[in-house]
Amino acid sequence: MNMAMIQDKIVPADELEPVYLDRGIFFGDGVYEVVRSYNGKIFALEEHLHRLADSLAAIEITGVDIDVVRGRVRRAFEAAGIPNAKIYFHITRGSGPRSHNWDADVKPNFFLTVSELEDSAELKTKGVAVSLYPDLRWKRCDIKSLNLLPNVLAHQDAARKGCFDAILVNEAGFITEGSSSAFFAIIGKSLQTTPLGSNVLPSVTRRFVFKAAENIRLQIIEKSLTPQQAGDADELFVAVTTKDILPVVRFDGKVIGDGRPGRYTKLLIEEFRTFTG
Amino acid sequence: MNMAMIQDKIVPADELEPVYLDRGIFFGDGVYEVVRSYNGKIFALEEHLHRLADSLAAIEITGVDIDVVRGRVRRAFEAAGIPNAKIYFHITRGSGPRSHNWDADVKPNFFLTVSELEDSAELKTKGVAVSLYPDLRWKRCDIKSLNLLPNVLAHQDAARKGCFDAILVNEAGFITEGSSSAFFAIIGKSLQTTPLGSNVLPSVTRRFVFKAAENIRLQIIEKSLTPQQAGDADELFVAVTTKDILPVVRFDGKVIGDGRPGRYTKLLIEEFRTFTG
Repeated sequence: MNMAMIQDKIVPADELEPVYLDRGIFFGDGVYEVVRSYNGKIFALEEHLHRLADSLAAIEITGVDIDVVRGRVRRAFEAAGIPNAKIYFHITRGSGPRSHNWDADVKPNFFLTVSELEDSAELKTKGVAVSLYPDLRWKRCDIKSLNLLPNVLAHQDAARKGCFDAILVNEAGFITEGSSSAFFAIIGKSLQTTPLGSNVLPSVTRRFVFKAAENIRLQIIEKSLTPQQAGDADELFVAVTTKDILPVVRFDGKVIGDGRPGRYTKLLIEEFRTFTG
Repeated sequence: MNMAMIQDKIVPADELEPVYLDRGIFFGDGVYEVVRSYNGKIFALEEHLHRLADSLAAIEITGVDIDVVRGRVRRAFEAAGIPNAKIYFHITRGSGPRSHNWDADVKPNFFLTVSELEDSAELKTKGVAVSLYPDLRWKRCDIKSLNLLPNVLAHQDAARKGCFDAILVNEAGFITEGSSSAFFAIIGKSLQTTPLGSNVLPSVTRRFVFKAAENIRLQIIEKSLTPQQAGDADELFVAVTTKDILPVVRFDGKVIGDGRPGRYTKLLIEEFRTFTG
């Protein structure tokens, strides 16, 4: 008879809980989002849900009602009662015996966690260091999928170097983005970042960064940077949902500017605060 | 307090079973193997365990004793009592709150299933069709990791086209391998396939195919094929643990040879039988 084994325990396959047969674990066959709240209010939930719908459509996970997802996110957030919370949720194609192709009647699985956000005030004041790592990811990084092993390897390498994140460099020698953040340079009075495409995630925070940049009259240039150009920039920063804007003061070992958060980066952080209430 | 949600049910985070916090599902942070038995004997287990060790080392999952894995595989196989079994097992880095970088003390998770193999006699006699799909995978396909979403998308596309597998074509216009199989062409008296490298899995079955090819005096050429070259080959086949050699009689809609399994392919299948007892 069909058997399964969990660690060293043998279990008849038909007694397995569906989570053990989740296509999320067999294949990374699912997508996810991370949203945060500021002082009891979830930020940019609609933008994240919109991106979730795009990710689901891109890998043809059907039968997910975004209104239901929104309701679950709000309900879990309220139940947790954490004013500054990080809300992670993924949707996988569903559970079943492992097979690359999927059955038409497979039902998506939903999983969410709400936890307290770490305070990032000190990181914002002092700035962070970033390292470089080759961009080993697949060709559809615009999909926020659960296939994140290359990101994990890059991030671990950065952590070992005492860095906040690894900035990924593709085979052509251009920066795409961070392993868990978007990456920006300020050169003169312009803000430069990788154009959207299949090689980067359409970052929600990026959109608010652009809005903030317009407010302080920075010119926006969507053009990939080389590590050399980034290292020579006046200011650098990363943007990520859980921490919005973090100044980068050290890039691949090189001190940026005077080693403290740059003038425009600080202005952008201030502008961003007006969005988050 | 930290909360989780499974489908629409709220659960305190500290009551979650570890499987819900498996890095395998959050990141695909794990590796796997598939072995099979022929008539009650597991085939090439040592070769698979060797590759598993390589995959674990490549992504720095430590603390896995291969002797323990071997023992578990054998024990589960015996408990199932299935003479022609498919044994799938994965090892993930472990469970914990979601964070890209890992803790030094995280403990690997092991999961295995044993199930009855489908009979592939008819597929061997009639041959199979394959389609083409872009190779969207990451740059370390030599690691047998759980990041398999591009394989899933390719395989589903093939299934819709009535094909057994999708043959992946990289940006340079060369075939790498199938989404769930290795790919081979016979041209004259030579056997041609992609050379090993970071863009293909070091297939265990491939090694036995080479041995079989030597036995019937085919010259082995390790050189990537274009789809055009493959379509013009005398014979084609795919190789995969669960089915060893399957003749390909239709390639991207084009009939190969006379539309029946080729002469050398049939000889290779016969040779393969001598290895599997």
